[in-house]
Amino acid sequence: MQKKNDLLLRAALGEEVERTPVWLMRQAGRILPQYRAIRNKLSGFKELVQTPELACEVTIQPVDELDVDAAIIFSDILEIPEAMGLPYKMVESKGPLFPKTIQSQADVDALKIADGARDIGYTIEAIRLTKKALNGRVPLIGFSGCPWTLFAYMIEGSGSKTFSKARRMLYQQPEASHQLMQKITLSILSYIKAQVAAGADLIQLFDSWAGILPPQQYAEFSLPYIAQLCDAMDEVPVTVFAKGAYFAREAIGQLDCQVVGLDWNMSPSESRQLIGNQKTLQGNFDPCLLYADQNTIRKEVRKMLEIFGTNRYIANLGHGVYPDTPLDNVKCFVDTVKEYNFSKIY
Amino acid sequence: MQKKNDLLLRAALGEEVERTPVWLMRQAGRILPQYRAIRNKLSGFKELVQTPELACEVTIQPVDELDVDAAIIFSDILEIPEAMGLPYKMVESKGPLFPKTIQSQADVDALKIADGARDIGYTIEAIRLTKKALNGRVPLIGFSGCPWTLFAYMIEGSGSKTFSKARRMLYQQPEASHQLMQKITLSILSYIKAQVAAGADLIQLFDSWAGILPPQQYAEFSLPYIAQLCDAMDEVPVTVFAKGAYFAREAIGQLDCQVVGLDWNMSPSESRQLIGNQKTLQGNFDPCLLYADQNTIRKEVRKMLEIFGTNRYIANLGHGVYPDTPLDNVKCFVDTVKEYNFSKIY
Repeated sequence: MQKKNDLLLRAALGEEVERTPVWLMRQAGRILPQYRAIRNKLSGFKELVQTPELACEVTIQPVDELDVDAAIIFSDILEIPEAMGLPYKMVESKGPLFPKTIQSQADVDALKIADGARDIGYTIEAIRLTKKALNGRVPLIGFSGCPWTLFAYMIEGSGSKTFSKARRMLYQQPEASHQLMQKITLSILSYIKAQVAAGADLIQLFDSWAGILPPQQYAEFSLPYIAQLCDAMDEVPVTVFAKGAYFAREAIGQLDCQVVGLDWNMSPSESRQLIGNQKTLQGNFDPCLLYADQNTIRKEVRKMLEIFGTNRYIANLGHGVYPDTPLDNVKCFVDTVKEYNFSKIY
Repeated sequence: MQKKNDLLLRAALGEEVERTPVWLMRQAGRILPQYRAIRNKLSGFKELVQTPELACEVTIQPVDELDVDAAIIFSDILEIPEAMGLPYKMVESKGPLFPKTIQSQADVDALKIADGARDIGYTIEAIRLTKKALNGRVPLIGFSGCPWTLFAYMIEGSGSKTFSKARRMLYQQPEASHQLMQKITLSILSYIKAQVAAGADLIQLFDSWAGILPPQQYAEFSLPYIAQLCDAMDEVPVTVFAKGAYFAREAIGQLDCQVVGLDWNMSPSESRQLIGNQKTLQGNFDPCLLYADQNTIRKEVRKMLEIFGTNRYIANLGHGVYPDTPLDNVKCFVDTVKEYNFSKIY
């Protein structure tokens, strides 16, 4: 019988841990041959997301193969816009594409507030299956995109270097923008509540396009909606990862969340100072460092662990692992964290 | 006979000015109907860059149409890699593409150091023509990409959200990377020296992909080469615009440059504090704000002018103007800066 590993949850809550927990964003994915074997048999990415048995299987693969301290449910942040009435396609090697986008007040009015359990039932079912299959081996992380990031895709219709259409909407139609943010927020809330009810042990909120907004717009259009989500989630710890929003770290430190994710640009010590001592920090190894030789990886991992310290810290990358990262280097990353001589820094 | 307008140069040098100088990055471009008329007659973007008479014409268009306080020579940062032996294509509505990229030490060795005056002679000639045509109306800005940004394109081969191939090279082949940076730096230096000899009154160095590097890599692979350029340029003021490198502002403040460009994420007051009082700041109006109504634009421009203050400041956007920005809104931006009641804040 396996011992229950709750390192992640204890670290998230600021409790004492024997060693630093470690997992990787996008650990369930193309870095694993087991994942590619399943993916190559399917018609597309969305088939994998929307088939609970398969989503469960690829969620558990990195726990088996990498021995990480958490599983994160395999899904996509754009399931929510689709559940609100705005379907998307995943175009191979290009990314997401929304055939129709939101441009007007009427478009906003036509969207519904998603019912997480019903409209994204396949992911909720995948969480149930995964939770059962994991049987307490490691905690299961649920997740959602943040309102601003989902808004950005719904207006822009695809990825973009500038998201200038989405940002234009904030300036040209601020009221309709707020209404859309609110609808998205309620949809997310319904969805993450359903994830927790199905067994998610922690919720991570990804604001992937946070860094594209000027500070004052981020304060007006993103943070208040993330705050709503944090305030409404009392059941499990919440992680907020606002990529690029270096200017908002102090404000994020004031949110009612337990963990703050840092990207690879953010200085650990400066971030700790801005965010305060009441949050657990997560991150922020440069994903590109996993292309280096293993001596370099080990040296840099140890450096990271020393800087972040042993309390209130979860080791991770500063962004999702790149799909062509050598698997052995990913293992080297995980193993170095796990083997780190914790006692020597006391 | 027109009065000579040297507001930009005096502001760059920290001298007193009657009002804040203003220009826009990418002001010579698609926002102007005059530009589109010329561009539509040509086979492609590069024909315009490489025909001195036409490059001169589109460089002067915004001075005529917008009455800005500077002209910036029409060219492209990727002319340097091409001059070093790595040609690129500009793919319509997609961006630059290098058919061959740099991957190995041998690739680095095969590149030559460009001779600016000879290898990019068309732009040098365009500067000569423009300088003559301007006849002192406004200063003429020359420019180049920074070594890291050119390096990024030369490895990656195109634009990219992560530039992971270019960043991988830094970790996997640090020595070859430094050698390439040095070759690029010497090419840039030859080129900007030739620009000044031909009449450029100020040189702006664009590190467009600065923000993708972790702080320690930026310190190792980008800043020392920018420093070499700054140290070698005594003839005219130099502007360093490192987009996204918020973490490097203090170090940029130590460079031997006169002006520091800020993107729209960077807080003016925090930046002033980090960069110090010995530099002129340039920026940082959100280009998306030019999609708003003109009352909003006027209000936000005035707010920007009040925050930056009247000394050591050049008004500009925080990034290049977006091509579909309404021309009247661009004019509103320029006019609001020029009409600002300078005396009221004393």
